[in-house]
Amino acid sequence: MPRTGRRPGAGGTREKILAAARSHFGEEGYDGATMRGIAAGAGVDPAMIPHYFGSKEGVFLAAVQFPVDPAEFIPRLLEPGIDGLGERMVMFFLETWDSAAGSSLLGLIRSVVSSELAADLMREFVTREVLGRIAEAIKLDHPQLRASLVATQLVGLALLRYVIKVEPLSSASREELARWIGPTIQRYLTDPNVTARGPSRRRR
Amino acid sequence: MPRTGRRPGAGGTREKILAAARSHFGEEGYDGATMRGIAAGAGVDPAMIPHYFGSKEGVFLAAVQFPVDPAEFIPRLLEPGIDGLGERMVMFFLETWDSAAGSSLLGLIRSVVSSELAADLMREFVTREVLGRIAEAIKLDHPQLRASLVATQLVGLALLRYVIKVEPLSSASREELARWIGPTIQRYLTDPNVTARGPSRRRR
Repeated sequence: MPRTGRRPGAGGTREKILAAARSHFGEEGYDGATMRGIAAGAGVDPAMIPHYFGSKEGVFLAAVQFPVDPAEFIPRLLEPGIDGLGERMVMFFLETWDSAAGSSLLGLIRSVVSSELAADLMREFVTREVLGRIAEAIKLDHPQLRASLVATQLVGLALLRYVIKVEPLSSASREELARWIGPTIQRYLTDPNVTARGPSRRRR
Repeated sequence: MPRTGRRPGAGGTREKILAAARSHFGEEGYDGATMRGIAAGAGVDPAMIPHYFGSKEGVFLAAVQFPVDPAEFIPRLLEPGIDGLGERMVMFFLETWDSAAGSSLLGLIRSVVSSELAADLMREFVTREVLGRIAEAIKLDHPQLRASLVATQLVGLALLRYVIKVEPLSSASREELARWIGPTIQRYLTDPNVTARGPSRRRR
């Protein structure tokens, strides 16, 4: 798990890198940021970034306190195959929210909704590291569309259950929610009809 | 449309009522607030509230700048029957966001996500006036569950399309989105299997 990094070294190098990373990602966006730029901001040797955080993705996850590592959880969810993938994704998503990591996710949603800069940054990160990985793995048509439809359903579920706390969603078990919502995720990821073109194809 | 009310009268009575309503709803919540309490806060005759806003719901819609009136749009969407209801709901939802009303909706989402008080207030209002009306109209089992599942999907769509601006959702046409997401809404509202109890019924 590169995102965790090592324990703070002498002189707080790790903390200096994280502070510089927050500012550098904020200025350059996720795609534009570089490990070299973060190192320059922190006044450390560029080799320190991979040393502490493994990769650009790793330093980003640590800087914004993103509680799970897409490089780890996406292959794990996809490994048993397509069958039941929708329910597995809902269960994993809710387990993360119900764990100690839930408060970081709430903070992330709040900052994304209130700040365009945070929204831009999170969009680039999620598009590349989360949706991109799923898209590559499912090997179906329109992977980016499918993955972003999944995101609408999961983010909306989190908002209603954890932020606005609407019943019966708020006190339902994870298993119930996976049964209700899993088939939606499954359809978005795998149903050929989702992306079939109807007569109203043309954009307005 | 009671929420629009009349033009400002002599002495700004309408504005005094709205200011008092924001504070009274904030203190008492939607369910606890009364037209009498709002009138007392504004220092006006209680008869002024129905005179300007029709009902408690009407003064709430005006106070929070809620851009559509559930008493009007819900019966209209349901009137042609159950067939195609999912697509109609997605189209109406997106038309509202794409209209001048979109910026009020964005402001509402931001305040709900950043303030627990706003979230509580909106939950009570949406549960009673939006979900409650749909629940009553569809005459199916578990109406509150069905309506709240619909809300997860629509709110998540708005966040990804209008706030975080993820592609291809952000530049897709309303018709495309209705085709992709309409069947999800239709299933939540009408599919008997959504609420069927499986072996994992027990709550944890």
